[in-house]
Amino acid sequence: MKILLIGATGTIGSAVATALEARHRVVRVGHTSGDYQVDMADKDSLEALLDAVGRVDAIVCTAGIARFGPLAELSDEDFSFTLRHKLMGQVNLVRVGIDHVSTGGSFTLTSGSLSQRPAPATAAVSMASGALESFARAAALDLDGRQRVNVVSPSSVRETLESMGMDPRPGMPAADLAETYLKVVEGDMTGQVIEP
Amino acid sequence: MKILLIGATGTIGSAVATALEARHRVVRVGHTSGDYQVDMADKDSLEALLDAVGRVDAIVCTAGIARFGPLAELSDEDFSFTLRHKLMGQVNLVRVGIDHVSTGGSFTLTSGSLSQRPAPATAAVSMASGALESFARAAALDLDGRQRVNVVSPSSVRETLESMGMDPRPGMPAADLAETYLKVVEGDMTGQVIEP
Repeated sequence: MKILLIGATGTIGSAVATALEARHRVVRVGHTSGDYQVDMADKDSLEALLDAVGRVDAIVCTAGIARFGPLAELSDEDFSFTLRHKLMGQVNLVRVGIDHVSTGGSFTLTSGSLSQRPAPATAAVSMASGALESFARAAALDLDGRQRVNVVSPSSVRETLESMGMDPRPGMPAADLAETYLKVVEGDMTGQVIEP
Repeated sequence: MKILLIGATGTIGSAVATALEARHRVVRVGHTSGDYQVDMADKDSLEALLDAVGRVDAIVCTAGIARFGPLAELSDEDFSFTLRHKLMGQVNLVRVGIDHVSTGGSFTLTSGSLSQRPAPATAAVSMASGALESFARAAALDLDGRQRVNVVSPSSVRETLESMGMDPRPGMPAADLAETYLKVVEGDMTGQVIEP
């Protein structure tokens, strides 16, 4: 398969790239590096990317930045930023991608387990993750027979916890999480929220 | 209790008003009628409403319009409209309401069962409902000890199905659904998504 991977330079994305490349041709996309660059918050940028890359069999997105903070301290811009990037960036990727992904191909997006098990100071990012999961379930119905749409909803990754100076032990190694993405891309599921 | 009810003139809202008024003082708010009017998509309008009404013990919102349509036909504006009204309208109601609701008081919002069990042509509204449910779970943690936050996630209401010329029998009578809102307002739960 020819797979477009957005977020390929991140902690999760680089592990996903390695897992996918064992069996597929991966086009790596980052915000400032990779084979191509894209601004997820800009739908024109997503369209330009897909036009440049041409037809693909799958799109995987591990990109989606968001703002954290206690509810009383989150600003209008914190909510707007999180909706533009983590939510609408991935939603628009599917909307624009419908005409660029082969029939029988797939979209695999990334939410986060905060959608169902939030922590303090995560109202905006939890909201965006919950939105993305419900979007994928609904979008899969509209795209049935054409393309599959799924969301991986990871909890904390070991490498991320380590880089933040936190106890890495509760985290899942990025390489293990990457195997989940590979299974979703190669499988036949659609409209699923996968908690690895 | 003094309860601010937004959406009081709608099918669900008017039944909720009747149920709440049996034991509480209800300030009814609509888009164009009621004791006060508000534009849910305009945060300044929400702030003006809360300043005018003064301190309340609970805010209940049954308002939140959204756009329906197959994914490939939904426009940028359909997504933006749905996020502004159904999602951010209710999110901003909580953000603005923190300083207007008594300690120990509550927010009760309305999502919809499409968040978990979508139908075709509901990608935007399902997304907004899922977002609101995850937001409430997370916001409840940040407001713990101050105010409660819950979401009622109803499926179709009998009266709505009837007015759309559909078979009303699978629907729940609005008066039964209203009892759920009353229980949530009078109870001590927080961070819950209640499916009546």
